[in-house]
Amino acid sequence: MTESLPVVVIVGGGFGGLRAAQRLKRAAVRIVLVDRRNYHLFQPLLYQVATAGLAPGEIAYPIRAILRHQQNLEFRLAEVTVVDLAQRRLTTSTGTLDYDYLILAFGAETNYLGLSSVVEHGFGLKDLDEAVAIRNHVLRMFELAAQESDPEVRQAMLTFAVVGGGPTGVESAGALAELTRLVQLKDFGELSPRDLRVLLLEASHRLLQGMPEGLSDATAETLWRKHVEVRFGTTVTDYDGRVVTLKSGELIPARTLIWAAGARAAGLADALGVQQGGLGRVMVEPTLQVPGHPEVFVIGDAAYWEEAGEPLPMVAPVAIQQAEVVARNIERAVAGEPPEEFCYRDPGSLATVGRNAAVARLGRFQFRGFAAWMVWLIAHLLRLVGFRNRLLVLINWAWDYFFYDRAVRLIMPEGRWPWTTGHGGE
Amino acid sequence: MTESLPVVVIVGGGFGGLRAAQRLKRAAVRIVLVDRRNYHLFQPLLYQVATAGLAPGEIAYPIRAILRHQQNLEFRLAEVTVVDLAQRRLTTSTGTLDYDYLILAFGAETNYLGLSSVVEHGFGLKDLDEAVAIRNHVLRMFELAAQESDPEVRQAMLTFAVVGGGPTGVESAGALAELTRLVQLKDFGELSPRDLRVLLLEASHRLLQGMPEGLSDATAETLWRKHVEVRFGTTVTDYDGRVVTLKSGELIPARTLIWAAGARAAGLADALGVQQGGLGRVMVEPTLQVPGHPEVFVIGDAAYWEEAGEPLPMVAPVAIQQAEVVARNIERAVAGEPPEEFCYRDPGSLATVGRNAAVARLGRFQFRGFAAWMVWLIAHLLRLVGFRNRLLVLINWAWDYFFYDRAVRLIMPEGRWPWTTGHGGE
Repeated sequence: MTESLPVVVIVGGGFGGLRAAQRLKRAAVRIVLVDRRNYHLFQPLLYQVATAGLAPGEIAYPIRAILRHQQNLEFRLAEVTVVDLAQRRLTTSTGTLDYDYLILAFGAETNYLGLSSVVEHGFGLKDLDEAVAIRNHVLRMFELAAQESDPEVRQAMLTFAVVGGGPTGVESAGALAELTRLVQLKDFGELSPRDLRVLLLEASHRLLQGMPEGLSDATAETLWRKHVEVRFGTTVTDYDGRVVTLKSGELIPARTLIWAAGARAAGLADALGVQQGGLGRVMVEPTLQVPGHPEVFVIGDAAYWEEAGEPLPMVAPVAIQQAEVVARNIERAVAGEPPEEFCYRDPGSLATVGRNAAVARLGRFQFRGFAAWMVWLIAHLLRLVGFRNRLLVLINWAWDYFFYDRAVRLIMPEGRWPWTTGHGGE
Repeated sequence: MTESLPVVVIVGGGFGGLRAAQRLKRAAVRIVLVDRRNYHLFQPLLYQVATAGLAPGEIAYPIRAILRHQQNLEFRLAEVTVVDLAQRRLTTSTGTLDYDYLILAFGAETNYLGLSSVVEHGFGLKDLDEAVAIRNHVLRMFELAAQESDPEVRQAMLTFAVVGGGPTGVESAGALAELTRLVQLKDFGELSPRDLRVLLLEASHRLLQGMPEGLSDATAETLWRKHVEVRFGTTVTDYDGRVVTLKSGELIPARTLIWAAGARAAGLADALGVQQGGLGRVMVEPTLQVPGHPEVFVIGDAAYWEEAGEPLPMVAPVAIQQAEVVARNIERAVAGEPPEEFCYRDPGSLATVGRNAAVARLGRFQFRGFAAWMVWLIAHLLRLVGFRNRLLVLINWAWDYFFYDRAVRLIMPEGRWPWTTGHGGE
């Protein structure tokens, strides 16, 4: 590794950052990948950790292990706090880093839409610690409900509100309905299914905006059959840990609120001092460069790019395709060639609603039910990093499918003991 | 379930409490099992969670799921705070509980021997959260060391001190040596094996007191070959998170100290107001009853009982055998019969030092090396609760064995982000 090679710093080891690093494997550059986590997270299955179906280690893989054999790369566990575009220098929690090229792939964070009460009392679902916190909390609610004599309190403990009808909300609500009704009740003979409520609250009038309307309707229908109360045109305005307040004035007693109503570019985007589009995403040239800074590229959830008048969704395929263009553009820049432009090829989308049920849009085809579920299952299994993870996830899924069980129903202590941890306000 | 049946309250869902509950399955009693955890923990493999070999969910199983089909039992997630022997009433974090018979199986806690600096800066290894904290910390030390330019600081970050040469200390030190040397270094090309140090500090002059001396020596020899510095006659007097102070005055710079130097009966033992033996354990009659309270039984780590002039060790077989006697004695008491006396049948003991290496004493036989390791492996696999856990653990072990890998090398955020969490004082 020669010190005089141009230095490419990549911020973020998600789908985009990782792919960019891998595509630059044979480039004549020195790569530094910075992430505040030591693992790459397979975010599409995060809701399964939250609903006790998978263990954190099964959907996360150490970044160093993934890139072990890449000679031109080093990894740094650190948080980037300042990006000085003029000086071409990053300040991180462990020191500074100078770059010749910069790829910003720092992703998104939960968008609470300014609702501070939800930040305080609700749960986001963007990283492993949040998923484990949801799992702990949901399981704890069952234990508390089993010892609760006041029927109104017991019902509130067993009411789980999911806000947002996008893929995360739909998949979480479906998985929660199955966890609570099919699995937990087997172990809680003292509780009645009549006390159980899973709500999916959506502000617009359809679920899964990226899907054809027919599949959206089918999804809502399937969720209903799984006893999820799907509510449209429903906007949450406040949550104090005990009662969800809707814009209509309706109050829903619920000790659990999972906020899946949106994401926005991570905070670093605001600190760059560059032009931002919707949801705080950084405006980029068609070549994914930051205007005025041709050595800086932004990809994935952090980048704002429109295609056919619509901003691209915050999904893995966008990040991965952009990573490939950016890797090529850096190689071209090093070689003195002009950059290529990015053009998105939509591979379709998939969402599962639970056992045997999913919806899929692949190119011009759309389908649902068991076939879509098998496609979802295989697609997700194959995209997991690490053969061991694939094997363990497959075993856990098969087991849960046949035995109506869930693998990881542990209430892990989070600093204090679970019966005293009053998240949600009890 | 008739309300007029005698109520047996069991405190603790460890090896003893669980076995007692299961043995009373057909007894004409109503059982309430109280634990502050919702899971039964397979403690003998806890060190493997600490060293990234197994996931928490693979060695823990929900108590409700284990006892799902037992009609005469209910489970309560709660911590017992007061035991009123005169009133036959427990106060718990979720209310009071009256009993006719009481089985105290609340186990042990880490015995820091009054060293408050170790409590503050060192790690205990008694429950899942502690194991995960050790895993996070050890992996974090590697990440920090990789970015550290001061060689002395870097060496301190890569020095891992384990205190106590009992089974937990021996197994932890062996597993740490393999994790750091065989696995981590593969991913940290910037670090040198010369900076790595794993120490096992033992105050006496041999490891594994319960083993024949020949096996103790063989264990120390095997640890040496794995590059563990085994130090005898070494007493730790202070630890500030950066430097271990020995009684001799020697100072060892180390950012990690795992305290496996002892256990004592959990705090509840002190609050009972009854006579206690060594390590705070409750003195019991040969029938395992508390003197003066024939309706109260104490078993496992919480109970003090001598056999051949020696207190019984704090191990699972003692707890399990005592549970069986106590279950019978409660059935006899209900039937108006006198209680039986407990007599321990020592099944032997096993400890592993790492790959292909273990020591075993089974009856009058003792052996070591690969054969002992296979016995250890099979014995532990079979004793795990849940067929899925056995399968997942087997896959993980086989994988790690053949690929020199570890399953769960994730630094999980614990409230704050890992690079700011200054456990150990960096």
